[in-house]
Amino acid sequence: MDQSELMQHISQQYNAELEAIRTKVLAMGGLVEQQLERAIGSLYDGQIEQAEEVVANDHKVNAFDVEIDERCTKIIALRQPTASDLRLVLTVIKTTADLERIGDEAKRVARMAISTAKSEAGRNLYQRIEHLGDRVREMLHSALDAFARMDVEEAIRVAHEDRRIDQEYEAIMRQGMTYMMEDPRSIPLLIDIMWAARALERIGDRCCNICEYIIYFVKGKDVRHTSLEQIAEEFGEEPTNADE
Amino acid sequence: MDQSELMQHISQQYNAELEAIRTKVLAMGGLVEQQLERAIGSLYDGQIEQAEEVVANDHKVNAFDVEIDERCTKIIALRQPTASDLRLVLTVIKTTADLERIGDEAKRVARMAISTAKSEAGRNLYQRIEHLGDRVREMLHSALDAFARMDVEEAIRVAHEDRRIDQEYEAIMRQGMTYMMEDPRSIPLLIDIMWAARALERIGDRCCNICEYIIYFVKGKDVRHTSLEQIAEEFGEEPTNADE
Repeated sequence: MDQSELMQHISQQYNAELEAIRTKVLAMGGLVEQQLERAIGSLYDGQIEQAEEVVANDHKVNAFDVEIDERCTKIIALRQPTASDLRLVLTVIKTTADLERIGDEAKRVARMAISTAKSEAGRNLYQRIEHLGDRVREMLHSALDAFARMDVEEAIRVAHEDRRIDQEYEAIMRQGMTYMMEDPRSIPLLIDIMWAARALERIGDRCCNICEYIIYFVKGKDVRHTSLEQIAEEFGEEPTNADE
Repeated sequence: MDQSELMQHISQQYNAELEAIRTKVLAMGGLVEQQLERAIGSLYDGQIEQAEEVVANDHKVNAFDVEIDERCTKIIALRQPTASDLRLVLTVIKTTADLERIGDEAKRVARMAISTAKSEAGRNLYQRIEHLGDRVREMLHSALDAFARMDVEEAIRVAHEDRRIDQEYEAIMRQGMTYMMEDPRSIPLLIDIMWAARALERIGDRCCNICEYIIYFVKGKDVRHTSLEQIAEEFGEEPTNADE
């Protein structure tokens, strides 16, 4: 193997390593999506076995987290990436951290499902939670999709979704409080349901974070503390009105 | 300047850059501590002006976050750190992210203080929250202290504190639910107080994260998904019993 062949070989291997961490993030994302779907499902159906499986499988999410972090650290140490390669590695490290915490929230929802199973109180609230859960799941799916394609426009669109989620969450809180006042005996159960809603709302925030990392990777600009309107003005299309 | 003088100069500058990001983290930590102290104080005293200041000052925390992140990215790109230097930079990036989110939680507590000010209901609960708040503040202070000295034993001790915080938090939740059932009119207020308690409990979790990064930096091992007992067995003294 002559010098130029060797260089080409190293460069191919490096690209393969970068591609591999992206692929790993998407695999981790798929697992987290599944965990979230099952947690929400078990909350709604009261299927304890499924909820217990979600709790038991959280270690798999954590294992992805540790493995991807190690790979990224190795790439930085051995390949000394710069510019967009470095941004990719940092984006992967941050995205992984948020996915791991989305996994934690899914586990919390599953725990709530176990503690509220078979209770008939607050069934109306369950329906609203399921709707919120569907929205949050879609948001996670779209955020991962935007990550896979490193698509800034999609990332901006997804980040906007968070406002709708916040509105639904607020509505659930108000309704929950009304139910509590009507029937104080249901308070412990309703508190659990409201925690589950809170966990879903937090997942929306974390999906937003992932979208911001995508923008950072593609545009090279840290937009974490910038308003959505400013981001859209600088990098995207017109923002759609979240209230519509 | 000859070659060896130049190398020495570069090396000194590099060390100064690494020292500077550590110092910045501690400055950011000091600001976050202050924000948390004021937020808790305003919750207890009902001083709206102070709570509003906390909300208004959150952008300063965010500015630290962005600046430290940029400096770290530059160091990785230009200095290509390896081994413990690289671990330091990654520890700083992660610690900063958690400090930023502790700042967010402090802002949430301040918002609760604004919405619950001047209400007399649930005053007993306020006292317990103040106690929880003191513990969480101490925990943050000790975590930053452990960071300043990169002290693994202290990091393990601080991480243990989190269990006590979780216990106090659970007690506040139970008491809050009892008050709600006794006086359903106080439900909206009590929900706010319980959110504030939740925010404090989350700050405890984030202090734990910071302690885990310290252990990662010093020992070169990712302990994020390892139990405290295992960590103490491998790296520290005997764990103290958190239930005592």
